[in-house]
Amino acid sequence: MPHIQVPEGVPGIRSLVMFRPETGQYLYKLAQVLLREESPLTPAERELIATHVSARNACVFCMSSHAAAARELYKEDRAIVDCVIRDGDAAPVTPKMKALLVIAGHVQQNGKNVTEADIAAARAEGATDRDIHDTVLIAAAFSMFNRYVDGLASFTPTDPKEYDAMGVRLAAVGYTLPKPVSA
Amino acid sequence: MPHIQVPEGVPGIRSLVMFRPETGQYLYKLAQVLLREESPLTPAERELIATHVSARNACVFCMSSHAAAARELYKEDRAIVDCVIRDGDAAPVTPKMKALLVIAGHVQQNGKNVTEADIAAARAEGATDRDIHDTVLIAAAFSMFNRYVDGLASFTPTDPKEYDAMGVRLAAVGYTLPKPVSA
Repeated sequence: MPHIQVPEGVPGIRSLVMFRPETGQYLYKLAQVLLREESPLTPAERELIATHVSARNACVFCMSSHAAAARELYKEDRAIVDCVIRDGDAAPVTPKMKALLVIAGHVQQNGKNVTEADIAAARAEGATDRDIHDTVLIAAAFSMFNRYVDGLASFTPTDPKEYDAMGVRLAAVGYTLPKPVSA
Repeated sequence: MPHIQVPEGVPGIRSLVMFRPETGQYLYKLAQVLLREESPLTPAERELIATHVSARNACVFCMSSHAAAARELYKEDRAIVDCVIRDGDAAPVTPKMKALLVIAGHVQQNGKNVTEADIAAARAEGATDRDIHDTVLIAAAFSMFNRYVDGLASFTPTDPKEYDAMGVRLAAVGYTLPKPVSA
């Protein structure tokens, strides 16, 4: 049961932004810019970074919903997503993405764990400043989203079909604020 | 040296939002709503939670700047801030704030570390849903800000006077986006 009174049956972060839309609006706008708008990384790659960090934080709601979005966006290559969840180092992604996933994993631990060697390895595979920036900010943002969702014990559905539906919506529509409970 | 090319000599997160204002605008708006606008917690108490989390993440820039803001806002009680940095459990704050700092410290580790007992202890000291929500989201947001600032190795001033000036500005003006580099 959630630690505070939020709309019943509404999963994860959606219930929390309905409780406090004043902060929620910026969380959703941040997610939309960061995961969907202009970037050298595709939306699929960005959802993969979000999934990787959420898996490492054991945040089941965020991991499952962003994995579902990443599978939708990777289309025929959707198996990549479950490989990353199992073992980021062994996943069949590009060398650049592999290096960026290492950076994201270090950010998940603590920002200071990102080393000069991590950055050099990513640059050697063609990563630009924007690739590195977006990777670090996505990993940092999911360090927040994961803690918000789990720190308030928000509702985490257990039926995989619910996440499949979320993945379809997140891939097609992106991040839109749920309507507040009618007053 | 920062891992990416940001405006030289601009400290911490300010240099990063100048690099990417499209995401930066929402980071600043989130900070302003969360730390300054309507809440049962005072701005001083909210800056104290931000300082506590940043100290635990060893993020020197965020800890020093938010501690400076908290000292300004606590006025004659400013010694509280350094007590919290040294040992949150022993700080001379209200019993409610003590319980909320415990929750914030658990969020800093992982959202799942917030227990039913943590929540019950805070409620026993008068914490409401909004107190608990805002504490968790502040702690989660600083888990992001700390990682963004340190994950890109942004410039961290070492002169305490620079942080004193930031504290005065943050207490008086709040969170306003720095102007982008003139194009």
